[in-house]
Amino acid sequence: MQTHPHGQAPQLTGDLAPSALLDAFWDYDRALLANDVAALDESFLPGEHTVRGDGTTLVLGHTAISDFRASRTLVPTRRVCSVHVQLVGDHSALLIAEVVSATGTTGMQTQLWRRIEQGWKVSAAHVTAPAAALDRSVWRVVGAPLVPGTGSGVLAADTIAVKDLFAVAGQVIGAGVPQFAAEATPETTTAPVVAALLAAGASITGLAQTDQFAYGIAGTNPLYGTPLNPAAPTRIPGGSSSGSASAVARGWSSIGLGTDTAGSIRIPAASQGLWGIRTSHGLLPVEGVLALAPSFDAVGWVTRDAETLARVAGVLVGETGTATADDGFVTIAGLTGLASAALGAAVESAAARLGAASLTLPAEFEEWFTAFRTVQAFEAWQCHGNWITGHPNALGADVAGRFRDASAITGPEARAARAVVDSARRSIRELLAGRTLLLPTMATLPTPLRATAGTIAADRASTLRLTSLASIAGLPAVSAPLLAVDGLPAGLCFVGQDRTDLHLIATARRSAEQLTG
Amino acid sequence: MQTHPHGQAPQLTGDLAPSALLDAFWDYDRALLANDVAALDESFLPGEHTVRGDGTTLVLGHTAISDFRASRTLVPTRRVCSVHVQLVGDHSALLIAEVVSATGTTGMQTQLWRRIEQGWKVSAAHVTAPAAALDRSVWRVVGAPLVPGTGSGVLAADTIAVKDLFAVAGQVIGAGVPQFAAEATPETTTAPVVAALLAAGASITGLAQTDQFAYGIAGTNPLYGTPLNPAAPTRIPGGSSSGSASAVARGWSSIGLGTDTAGSIRIPAASQGLWGIRTSHGLLPVEGVLALAPSFDAVGWVTRDAETLARVAGVLVGETGTATADDGFVTIAGLTGLASAALGAAVESAAARLGAASLTLPAEFEEWFTAFRTVQAFEAWQCHGNWITGHPNALGADVAGRFRDASAITGPEARAARAVVDSARRSIRELLAGRTLLLPTMATLPTPLRATAGTIAADRASTLRLTSLASIAGLPAVSAPLLAVDGLPAGLCFVGQDRTDLHLIATARRSAEQLTG
Repeated sequence: MQTHPHGQAPQLTGDLAPSALLDAFWDYDRALLANDVAALDESFLPGEHTVRGDGTTLVLGHTAISDFRASRTLVPTRRVCSVHVQLVGDHSALLIAEVVSATGTTGMQTQLWRRIEQGWKVSAAHVTAPAAALDRSVWRVVGAPLVPGTGSGVLAADTIAVKDLFAVAGQVIGAGVPQFAAEATPETTTAPVVAALLAAGASITGLAQTDQFAYGIAGTNPLYGTPLNPAAPTRIPGGSSSGSASAVARGWSSIGLGTDTAGSIRIPAASQGLWGIRTSHGLLPVEGVLALAPSFDAVGWVTRDAETLARVAGVLVGETGTATADDGFVTIAGLTGLASAALGAAVESAAARLGAASLTLPAEFEEWFTAFRTVQAFEAWQCHGNWITGHPNALGADVAGRFRDASAITGPEARAARAVVDSARRSIRELLAGRTLLLPTMATLPTPLRATAGTIAADRASTLRLTSLASIAGLPAVSAPLLAVDGLPAGLCFVGQDRTDLHLIATARRSAEQLTG
Repeated sequence: MQTHPHGQAPQLTGDLAPSALLDAFWDYDRALLANDVAALDESFLPGEHTVRGDGTTLVLGHTAISDFRASRTLVPTRRVCSVHVQLVGDHSALLIAEVVSATGTTGMQTQLWRRIEQGWKVSAAHVTAPAAALDRSVWRVVGAPLVPGTGSGVLAADTIAVKDLFAVAGQVIGAGVPQFAAEATPETTTAPVVAALLAAGASITGLAQTDQFAYGIAGTNPLYGTPLNPAAPTRIPGGSSSGSASAVARGWSSIGLGTDTAGSIRIPAASQGLWGIRTSHGLLPVEGVLALAPSFDAVGWVTRDAETLARVAGVLVGETGTATADDGFVTIAGLTGLASAALGAAVESAAARLGAASLTLPAEFEEWFTAFRTVQAFEAWQCHGNWITGHPNALGADVAGRFRDASAITGPEARAARAVVDSARRSIRELLAGRTLLLPTMATLPTPLRATAGTIAADRASTLRLTSLASIAGLPAVSAPLLAVDGLPAGLCFVGQDRTDLHLIATARRSAEQLTG
């Protein structure tokens, strides 16, 4: 019997393996359980053909695998209970290991090992971790379905991931905060927006996770975990409508319903290669939706394709959202310039193909942004300060810190900031003069999961400057997955005039055909 | 480019594969999508070392793999989007294929191919199907958790899979019938048994599937699918508390709460290698529990170990369940003899080691059984006939047929049967005279998923004769996973005296130590 890290000897079946191979296997397993990235890298065969996959993510090449591992936030905690060996000549072997979790859930890993001068190395690994009942980073509650549809209507084939801020009769609102969910009483009425989708035939798959109280744009949640960004597995998913977006990107729902205060629909859409719309402020009812900052809160949704984006809009947007506008495009150099060079160039190129005119960024822009942040923070504390004060340990450090800062804003400061925002809203609308603004949805590609706090803060600050424009102006904004930089998704954002939401979606679809045709 | 069954050519990476290998791969993929079992068998390398696994089930040997495939009820519907090849010498190759579902959910399969005289064959396959948001054959609703625990109490570390017959405030009761769930209104009060578990600190993982209206013992459900029996993947899971049992067997919950009218706890427990108890009739409140046949309905639960079974009993069973009894064991030859020869022998052997005396089966037994079935059916129709009449297409053929037969039973027939059951109850209690009855929980090993209707009916009829005894007598019964025949789990059933539930569990635990020590 070879050495292995567990008290109990696993069952061995198949061919008789060389002891050096089994030793290498157990070294690898020890490194896995210890999340010893250097040792794991050492266990894998160098080169571009080495491959590692788990069904959701397939990574090719030793360097990319190393990067993937280093980004991983969850370390496995299972033990190997059996190993099956198939020798392939003298220098290769397939090892299939059954693993089992503490509660008895089983998983499996298959590895192709190659003997090189430095010893046995893995050239291919397929990992199936013990399955959870649900992915709690994506869902707080999920059903088969959670709420059935009527079976008829234009959304009869659609399924909704509802951000855990919307009231669904019988369910509590959780807002990404376990303690908030635990103390909540079930809602008795379904939010009108959700009810309208149900009436159009859609069913609800489940209630999707969010940054805590939706006060974040990263999509990270320390208490439920960070949903996978399937379009960029080593990057953050974007938030706060992170669960809704991840559920759509993974194919579990066709509609990811959410809210957008400062970019919470547009950012996860852009990060995950989805379509997303933030609707005109005040166009859709926010009754039954937990508020963050009512001056800016707007309903929105993400989808995998533009057709579904439009189909949902057809249901939710009444006559008031059907105004049309000038068909001209504009860019604002000072905004595009906030993005990374490659992203900015991609936007400039798209804008040129769409014949966009160029505008100048008003000198007051930074003042507007500061005022926006002040009003948002003040209102967020008005909404949640009491509860947070009574539950000092309920939030992750990041969101808790943001609320702590928010609590320091005084009424007079907020009033002054609101006056600036009101004036900014008018100025932006006048500046666009009925045209559609094109800008990068985000200033950067999705931030790496393992970025430093400094990088995360810098990415956040520059992206919020871009997204805040539509929030300040109360205008509808569509993020379309039309850009790609270094193989990663990026969004081209279309900001339209007030209550032209249907027209704006049509404009974005037509532009997409033009740009990709 | 080799031929492949999809319009779109998948991406090829890695080594340049021989075209014969890729042809074999695409033939195999076509066979998978067509569920062409003969062609799949042909694609696999003959022999004992050929292996196929998916993380939940690992099957070794060509024959067992063939059997596993033939039992499969779900056929994959994904397409291959990329293939990565690693050649291992001239006669072997690893193929890794990424697959994607219609909604964009990804999966992966890894195969080791070997070239033999007859062509390229698979010697090892690892399959990760595109992941669903939840396993709807096990759960109707599942959460992170669905209902949090209090965080303290003797069950603070426990998680409950609640059979979808129990009221949980805010949730509807679904009873395994989608249309019933769709029309139900959320419960306002949690069933007292569930509330007691929550008060003791447990959390609710989710609401678990059941045979429709709990009127079955197979655990099959045509509308939600049949939960996996992880202890015997080609066999039925047992029901009607099938979802609760499967959730526990798969490690998703520690407590599977259910009901047992004619064996609905004991049968899935025995089928899946779990511990299970049907409590004394009337001992635990059935308030907030959807009835099937109130004369026999009893609360019960399944667990992975005896300690958890006892811990739950300690919470739920008050003073009334703590009576003690004679420590002697008995068997009834005429009951043990209803089981298959191997199972009967296993029970006889265990009974001998426990020093059991032998009793004779009363001549009236078959009459008792018929009367039990009559009363059960009559009451089931009383409970659900109105709803079923109003929803003629809501049930699967099997359960619908059972209810149809039930609807034909007249009041006088039911009254006469009830008199027989009442008399039988007294007779059984007198016969046991304070001793613990040992019998096989089921008459057969779990029925193969692909058994003929005749086999299914025969297995069902003989098992129900065994399980009905405790139901008729209203006695507590513990099924313990102490027998194994042909590598499959089987239950040894302990039937105790009325309201001696805690004592019975202690007796079963002591016996288990004696039998396995």
